[in-house]
Amino acid sequence: MSLHEDMLLLGDRAVAAARALARLHSRRKNTLLEAMAAELDAQRAVILQANAEDLAAARQAGLSPALLDRLQLTDARVDAMIKGIHDVIALKDPVGLRLSRWLRPNGLEIHKIRVPIGVIAIIYEARPNVTADAAVLCLKASNAVILRGGSEALRSNRAIAAVLQAGGAKKGLPEGALQIITTPDHDAVRELVQLEGRVDLVIPRGGEGLIRAVVEQARVPVIKHYKGVCHVYVDQQADFAMALDICENAKCQRPGVCNAIEKVLVHEKIAAPFLPQLAARLTARQVELRGDEAARRIVPAMKPATEADWYAEYLDLILTVGVVPDVHAAAAHINRFGSHHSDAIVSADEAAQQVFTRDVDSATVYVNASTRFTDGGEFGMGAEIGISTDKLHARGPMALEELTTYKYVIWGHGQVRK
Amino acid sequence: MSLHEDMLLLGDRAVAAARALARLHSRRKNTLLEAMAAELDAQRAVILQANAEDLAAARQAGLSPALLDRLQLTDARVDAMIKGIHDVIALKDPVGLRLSRWLRPNGLEIHKIRVPIGVIAIIYEARPNVTADAAVLCLKASNAVILRGGSEALRSNRAIAAVLQAGGAKKGLPEGALQIITTPDHDAVRELVQLEGRVDLVIPRGGEGLIRAVVEQARVPVIKHYKGVCHVYVDQQADFAMALDICENAKCQRPGVCNAIEKVLVHEKIAAPFLPQLAARLTARQVELRGDEAARRIVPAMKPATEADWYAEYLDLILTVGVVPDVHAAAAHINRFGSHHSDAIVSADEAAQQVFTRDVDSATVYVNASTRFTDGGEFGMGAEIGISTDKLHARGPMALEELTTYKYVIWGHGQVRK
Repeated sequence: MSLHEDMLLLGDRAVAAARALARLHSRRKNTLLEAMAAELDAQRAVILQANAEDLAAARQAGLSPALLDRLQLTDARVDAMIKGIHDVIALKDPVGLRLSRWLRPNGLEIHKIRVPIGVIAIIYEARPNVTADAAVLCLKASNAVILRGGSEALRSNRAIAAVLQAGGAKKGLPEGALQIITTPDHDAVRELVQLEGRVDLVIPRGGEGLIRAVVEQARVPVIKHYKGVCHVYVDQQADFAMALDICENAKCQRPGVCNAIEKVLVHEKIAAPFLPQLAARLTARQVELRGDEAARRIVPAMKPATEADWYAEYLDLILTVGVVPDVHAAAAHINRFGSHHSDAIVSADEAAQQVFTRDVDSATVYVNASTRFTDGGEFGMGAEIGISTDKLHARGPMALEELTTYKYVIWGHGQVRK
Repeated sequence: MSLHEDMLLLGDRAVAAARALARLHSRRKNTLLEAMAAELDAQRAVILQANAEDLAAARQAGLSPALLDRLQLTDARVDAMIKGIHDVIALKDPVGLRLSRWLRPNGLEIHKIRVPIGVIAIIYEARPNVTADAAVLCLKASNAVILRGGSEALRSNRAIAAVLQAGGAKKGLPEGALQIITTPDHDAVRELVQLEGRVDLVIPRGGEGLIRAVVEQARVPVIKHYKGVCHVYVDQQADFAMALDICENAKCQRPGVCNAIEKVLVHEKIAAPFLPQLAARLTARQVELRGDEAARRIVPAMKPATEADWYAEYLDLILTVGVVPDVHAAAAHINRFGSHHSDAIVSADEAAQQVFTRDVDSATVYVNASTRFTDGGEFGMGAEIGISTDKLHARGPMALEELTTYKYVIWGHGQVRK
């Protein structure tokens, strides 16, 4: 059988499973998820063994220590996966909720009902815990899930998926509800994201290269973010102590993630007193500073920033600093160079806050807070399947609700159209 | 300048206009729309002259009478465009609405705010009135719009767009808010739907061929429906008089539209008494009937249905009829062969209604009503930009709300992440 036929069959199985999942009550779904968590606990040795093999191969292949750390599973990390499942079990099931209801003059009653999306494909890199986290969130919203992880975690992902399937099967998980693609063939991803009519949504998670490849090949909808080029704008009316805390937190607390900032823009009226304080604070945290001309006139130790710096996602202890004439210029700069992810203003001026929150075209816009809060958990969603910088369907942190759609159910008593 | 550079510039102008539109208050937008309506009224001779030239060329090219009718503008049709603008003016502006708001334990206040999508491209065929209808709906929701109509209506579309631009310009419509592509080059569509970062959404309207071509080329999100293969399922517990009325209405009232039915499925227990009545009723309306074996045993005059008939969108007075063992089989058949558009059950049995509305995976599911109600106007939306059989962002009839997205605005007082 060809890869194409394989993938069609995989898609057909997922569609059939999605229909079965859509019929399950919340209690049944939670029973399935509990069985999966229990099986993860019982089979942790199998998972750790598979992971040890992945790690050995990765070391042989010369993966960096950072990547090895992302790949590694430990008892604590398996515990975290299990806890993650219990967290999802505790979440309210969004499926079946009536979002709105109205009556037409002809007596038709229109109900807008939250329903599962159907079949969701997750394409991801590195961390094997995504196999459990993503699958469980999709299943809780009655979606069938097709997983495709990175080749370096192949054995770990396969083991986790097999354990989850085995646990679910004990309580009647529909066959095809959780499938994983383990062929190393790269064409499998292309086939997967072109399964129109079978796959309803693709969520890629990983580096920009992976995500761009998925979008270029896809013929089914994709929700994603390419990168996080996030800003803090320090306004003329900023409280300096607050601005310094926010800039330090947003840059240094975890520099390798998408909601960390890469740029700080400073109002020209306060640049002279503020920038030396910012430089002192961040240099003490080993941050390399790059600046535009105006910034470097005030802090000459900054390296000169290039055009490319304004677009760059460093994911590292590097920060580019610029001086702007006002909040309008700050918003225009952010819209032009940013990635529409998370951007913050620090200001006590209500007018400036209003301009910034209205004009900055990003998924999440902060007033006097760190951009690091862009996260499903921090938003109170209880979990996260990813963050979207798209504008359609879901924007910002995505969790259970964002894995659903709606349908209209219209109740009549024989109405026909005149 | 190359076509590619042309389209990048067009996209840049649209992005700039979208930012300006997002800042306009509802009253300002309505003033713009009123000026457009007034200009349409004042310049109707110009529009009718351009349309006469399109019609002459179309007659020369041998277009069918049906297509000529779709292409033709009359004073009454210009009046309808003007009335359409006033209808949109009367709609409540969705932009700026706070969809929800919650407080986090750390004091962060999260607001979810309805905002414009940004830049919307509409690709359409035939009817020149779409030029005004679609543009005005996009603008009301503060979106910049890029139009690309069919070549046969080129002069009409260009004239309507120019008149709308001229009317809007009198009241300060941002340049680039309403643009129309008039190059006959087919590559323009490909370039347009690949303008990632400039075009936020593409809505194609027209035949299945047009829509498939757009989806295959697109790298930006597309919302669409390919076709409407709609069903009525007549259950064992159906009121025959109601079922006959609904089948006749859904098939005959306007057979050429996407929410007309193409198939009727009948419960086997009532097929023998019901099918002869259905055949008599529809034959009297000149409907050609095709049936599966079971249906033809009861009404031998039906032509035999082929496999292709079950997938077919006739858009004509043709109906394929099948007999099914129960509501589960009906739902499975509809999910397999249908287009997930509009499907109805006629039944007095609550259990069957529940199964049907839960299991049929379509944008709109009817109980005891005609599928012909799938329409923005009939739903009470006041207008319609199209109908979606997609599951992401918008499903079913789409109007103003569906032309918006949301962003999160988070209000803090110095919070940083621990």
